[in-house]
Amino acid sequence: MAENPFADGCAYIDGEYFPIAEARIPIIDTGFTRSDVTYDVVAVWNGKFFRLKDHLNRFERGWNRLRMNPELSIKEMREILFECVRRSALRNAFVEMIVSRGIDEDGSRDPRRFRNRFYAYAIPYVWIAKPEKQEVGIHLVVAQKTIRIPANAVDPTVKNFHWGDLVKGTYEAFDRGAYTVVLPDADGNITEGPGFNVFVYHQGRLRTPATGVLEGITRQTVLDLAEEQGIPVELDRFGADVLEEAKEVFISSTAGGVIPVTTVNNKSVGDGKPGKITALIRKRYWEAHDEDRWTFPVIYPKI
Amino acid sequence: MAENPFADGCAYIDGEYFPIAEARIPIIDTGFTRSDVTYDVVAVWNGKFFRLKDHLNRFERGWNRLRMNPELSIKEMREILFECVRRSALRNAFVEMIVSRGIDEDGSRDPRRFRNRFYAYAIPYVWIAKPEKQEVGIHLVVAQKTIRIPANAVDPTVKNFHWGDLVKGTYEAFDRGAYTVVLPDADGNITEGPGFNVFVYHQGRLRTPATGVLEGITRQTVLDLAEEQGIPVELDRFGADVLEEAKEVFISSTAGGVIPVTTVNNKSVGDGKPGKITALIRKRYWEAHDEDRWTFPVIYPKI
Repeated sequence: MAENPFADGCAYIDGEYFPIAEARIPIIDTGFTRSDVTYDVVAVWNGKFFRLKDHLNRFERGWNRLRMNPELSIKEMREILFECVRRSALRNAFVEMIVSRGIDEDGSRDPRRFRNRFYAYAIPYVWIAKPEKQEVGIHLVVAQKTIRIPANAVDPTVKNFHWGDLVKGTYEAFDRGAYTVVLPDADGNITEGPGFNVFVYHQGRLRTPATGVLEGITRQTVLDLAEEQGIPVELDRFGADVLEEAKEVFISSTAGGVIPVTTVNNKSVGDGKPGKITALIRKRYWEAHDEDRWTFPVIYPKI
Repeated sequence: MAENPFADGCAYIDGEYFPIAEARIPIIDTGFTRSDVTYDVVAVWNGKFFRLKDHLNRFERGWNRLRMNPELSIKEMREILFECVRRSALRNAFVEMIVSRGIDEDGSRDPRRFRNRFYAYAIPYVWIAKPEKQEVGIHLVVAQKTIRIPANAVDPTVKNFHWGDLVKGTYEAFDRGAYTVVLPDADGNITEGPGFNVFVYHQGRLRTPATGVLEGITRQTVLDLAEEQGIPVELDRFGADVLEEAKEVFISSTAGGVIPVTTVNNKSVGDGKPGKITALIRKRYWEAHDEDRWTFPVIYPKI
């Protein structure tokens, strides 16, 4: 039997499905040349989408706030996401959906006249930190040279590709011997890192930044699971001092789940091992990927 | 004779030249998915590149600051830009060069391991405001709802595609009946607009924001030409009040040159017509496109 050409991933562009390595967008799409775009990422785990409805709702809010008007309905987009996964045959996938302002087809520079475009792709599940790395935990630093783009410049609750600050911070993390970075805002409050939210377990409460961050679906899942476990949660503001003092620290992302942080700014967190609350939430997070309330199965073609 | 397939524009991608409508980049290029990219735009006017060396120098500084390492030399890039223009046969062109962080070819998420990519294209000259519009001048507003991304988040002197703030401001301008927008910083100082710097002629001096902006080549050309004309120039900080009070206002961009602003925040600038200093600089700007010191001719193929 011929190998599946979509085995490394499958993308949807302009009504057609492509193997991921051949999937291309116009170089003059303003989703690229102005980063005028919003996106979302949903996971498929063991053949089931996780919290797909929540991701689609956030995605729709995002393009509405950007005053975009894609030509496809949410239902059609949803069907395309399933089709990308089905064609790839991936059981564990990172599924990205994008609405771009698109192209200036009549030569106008007026973004109100552009045809907004929908793109999507499924690729193998992405790990910010691989499971074996998660067992020992990662080293996170708070950037000293870069702040997060403020919400009154670019709204972080509309998921976006404005990662210049996050990439610069990542290089600072490498320079300081760390694995990844979290950026402060102009007042020194912790915000978020490249593709993740951050949590501390501090003074008996699970705390995460309230504002200036993406309202992550994995962040929401952590909050939901913590409440079920009777762990007090709080959305608030805190600085690098709290990250350094906290008994436990972890990050949350659709790309890797609940990831223990065992070193902050070159200092051990607690006893330097992933903490108990972190381990409990992490265990519940993966169990939840098989619970009916949050999952929707993909019906794969028979091979 | 067959029509030139590159007549609408010619792009260079991965060693090949494409008609602009077929020019595509990988959807998973982090130049798109993280806007991890720098670019520059140079004009060709009447068959001559304008200040190409200055654009290439700025471009090179940009990717160095982003710690990118494209596989081509500046000389090779320069040759590709000429070839894009030659193939398009355009006498007046907007020529864009891009270095992107590129693709995670081995599945790593570590940007230090990505193969950085060079893209380029030439398309017909782009006008932020068409010449006939420039004769009457445009209506500019200072955004009230959006600030410019600050320099300690994303460095504006490294020309970038982080336009979320600029696009949001553009929609605010439309809502307020204006043509385009300029964004303030967090302290209310004027910065820049979508693709342009801003100048005022105020109290006998030509003033433009010193910091928090792209150091535009057209901005530099305006400063050079003003000095030659004996007009005092000053790089400093000023707010919306100065824009509203100024005797003359104009914007500068490779995409349109020196563009008179005759209305600011719904109020006429001066007598509501393009001013004398503006007209002088604008005239000199276009004359300079035929002066040897700043131009380099394209040798077009014989047809």
